[in-house]
Amino acid sequence: MAIWLDQAAEGFGETFAAFLTTKREVSDDVNDVVKAIIADVRARGDAALADYSLRFDGIDFSDVPMRVTPAEIDEAAAKVAPEVMDALRLAAERIEKHHARQMPKDDIYEDALGVGLGSRWTAIEAVGLYVPGGTASYPSSVLMNAVPARVAGVERIVMVVPASGGAINPTVLAAAKIAGVEEIYRIGGAQAVAALAYGTETIAPVAKIVGPGNAYVAAAKRQVFGTVGIDMIAGPSEVLVIADANNNPDWLAADLLAQAEHDPGAQSILITDDAALGHAVMSAVERQLKSLSRSETAAASWRDFGAVILVKSLADAVPLANRIAAEHLELAVDDPDALMAGVRNAGAIFVGRHTPEVIGDYVGGSNHVLPTARSARFSSGLSVLDFVKRTSILRLGPEQLRALAPAAIALAKSEGLDAHARSVAIRLNLEG
Amino acid sequence: MAIWLDQAAEGFGETFAAFLTTKREVSDDVNDVVKAIIADVRARGDAALADYSLRFDGIDFSDVPMRVTPAEIDEAAAKVAPEVMDALRLAAERIEKHHARQMPKDDIYEDALGVGLGSRWTAIEAVGLYVPGGTASYPSSVLMNAVPARVAGVERIVMVVPASGGAINPTVLAAAKIAGVEEIYRIGGAQAVAALAYGTETIAPVAKIVGPGNAYVAAAKRQVFGTVGIDMIAGPSEVLVIADANNNPDWLAADLLAQAEHDPGAQSILITDDAALGHAVMSAVERQLKSLSRSETAAASWRDFGAVILVKSLADAVPLANRIAAEHLELAVDDPDALMAGVRNAGAIFVGRHTPEVIGDYVGGSNHVLPTARSARFSSGLSVLDFVKRTSILRLGPEQLRALAPAAIALAKSEGLDAHARSVAIRLNLEG
Repeated sequence: MAIWLDQAAEGFGETFAAFLTTKREVSDDVNDVVKAIIADVRARGDAALADYSLRFDGIDFSDVPMRVTPAEIDEAAAKVAPEVMDALRLAAERIEKHHARQMPKDDIYEDALGVGLGSRWTAIEAVGLYVPGGTASYPSSVLMNAVPARVAGVERIVMVVPASGGAINPTVLAAAKIAGVEEIYRIGGAQAVAALAYGTETIAPVAKIVGPGNAYVAAAKRQVFGTVGIDMIAGPSEVLVIADANNNPDWLAADLLAQAEHDPGAQSILITDDAALGHAVMSAVERQLKSLSRSETAAASWRDFGAVILVKSLADAVPLANRIAAEHLELAVDDPDALMAGVRNAGAIFVGRHTPEVIGDYVGGSNHVLPTARSARFSSGLSVLDFVKRTSILRLGPEQLRALAPAAIALAKSEGLDAHARSVAIRLNLEG
Repeated sequence: MAIWLDQAAEGFGETFAAFLTTKREVSDDVNDVVKAIIADVRARGDAALADYSLRFDGIDFSDVPMRVTPAEIDEAAAKVAPEVMDALRLAAERIEKHHARQMPKDDIYEDALGVGLGSRWTAIEAVGLYVPGGTASYPSSVLMNAVPARVAGVERIVMVVPASGGAINPTVLAAAKIAGVEEIYRIGGAQAVAALAYGTETIAPVAKIVGPGNAYVAAAKRQVFGTVGIDMIAGPSEVLVIADANNNPDWLAADLLAQAEHDPGAQSILITDDAALGHAVMSAVERQLKSLSRSETAAASWRDFGAVILVKSLADAVPLANRIAAEHLELAVDDPDALMAGVRNAGAIFVGRHTPEVIGDYVGGSNHVLPTARSARFSSGLSVLDFVKRTSILRLGPEQLRALAPAAIALAKSEGLDAHARSVAIRLNLEG
């Protein structure tokens, strides 16, 4: 059973502050193991990959090639139900259209002095996409990572996915095919991250690695960060639903459980100004839990981290929402725009009663890779911007240099940097 | 003496590849020390800050307040030479104008189905700016970090700067004043990073920490990452100059030395198609080294990491530049635009012979916080984007939900997520 917090109760401020800092993840310290694996892959390349894949995934690269063949991808796609293929295609198309609008534009201009300034955006040349194995192997995540990379103009997208026991989820390969990913290796874990970062005989290195993974993958991404770029390190999923009295409790319960079924560390929170609705949703959750295939996971998440927060007025929900800074925020209220105007910290907002968060997981068009664990206070969901980088441009002629030189020389001297001052002064026969 | 690489020589490919992977930083393993300091600041707050400041900076907070007073800031600014104050004001104004153009725009729209989609940008609420003490305490860096944060709309900018022996560089305080930073604490090291991330009795926590620092500061930033956002972890500075025969060797030598004087780990590289120019620049570097106040640092950098690379043609310089992915790239050639078109990986490009990189350090208007150590392959310099975050927005009515529901349900079921399917189906009385 989730906790019940009442804004009107004594000590709510402290209770809420404590609730905010609840840890939902056991972070295993796997750094040493991961360090050794990375060093081994750097030293022995493919041979190390073969050893780890045999040991961890039970796959022998003398029987099966490390790289997934085009025929295998086609065969996998042929196995997927037509309605799922259609759904993947619809999702890919909507993701592509939405993300195409995110492409930043170059801005090259001259200022009043005649100084040329600018920003030029270019795609990252090669990106690695980690896809987990087993039940966390989500085809929708392949689309959410690969399509924006493709839209950004990344030429080489390399997917790695562990073939636990030899098998790769065919829908994952179908999603890769739809997203135009052709370079796929059946490797996983820290060894796959190391191979992407440093390269092996078979795999050329990439410049950035994205995608979710277990504790080993997360630790490996942290360790190779700097050599390559990485996306965020995502924690368990979370949803915050703000709801007024005019809601069907069953709809809201379903939304809360859709997060809870992801992970025992997932978190589902309802904020409402109506105690009766709060109680009705709690009952509905208990009822719906019974018929879920992942009821054990969902029940654990709801029991350990679920919460219903009763507020005096809906306006009071907004500052709480900003402190929670949820990955997903649903506004199931009569006037969602009024609340939305005050929301500042949220990964994504789902507006109105007919926008369940799940639509955003799959076919809304927006990205489902979003900041978790309150990091929406300082970071954003995955977008085309994660696959491009900006080069700044400066262009002076002799006249502009003359205009700016005295200030540059004064600052260089005040910082004790002689050679800096000279680099400007020497071009104008000034004293440096 | 720097190394000389000749594209025409046998084994150039291997030599260049080895040159690319040269490590220029000794990364001290200070993680355990930093971990203990962070834990202590979390546990004891201000008392821990007082202890560390006494021990490391020789400053006693029972004599001097931790927070720098407004009077102190005004007095510091009054001590700074008027031409330096003017130069700081000019720099701040140019940085502000340039960065204002970088503000991303909200994009809220309806697609053909009538689905509302969008991206909304908001400023991070509170940002901490770390400023190193001692000789690395650069007023220009205060402007480069604080002005973009201000432009982004960050309401609270907190500066920390260690007062080694009690003193803070007055020009740093003057720069803070010009940038509108009023909340300044005389603390530094890992303890200052911990205070910004977790807060103490005196210091409210921030959501993101930016700014350069030593190995302890860098390790602390890595450790608090997740609780707060951080900017890049910058390594030693570097410049790549591509030059044709028509250059004054003294100008180029001054540019190479302007990087070299920063740090023994800094790197200055010249690529030219003219051997005579290469030799002339090398001689000029030796000559100019003698008259620098930081000649020891610059000589060490040039000796250990400096390089002149002779190419057969200027066009051959471009792929090498993309592999080097330099923080700063100067194009000192007759037709810089021809080369620039092919450059993909560079933090900033300085176009033409009259644009010494040093102008960008101070008064160009572009940011001088740029990706080092080849990270321009996957990341960008500091900009307004580092101080805002994007919330994505999705809005469906009943009609749009009906249109997208079947695909969402098909994907949810194929991923084995019952509650996801139900959350959509239940709203339409469909089978979930």
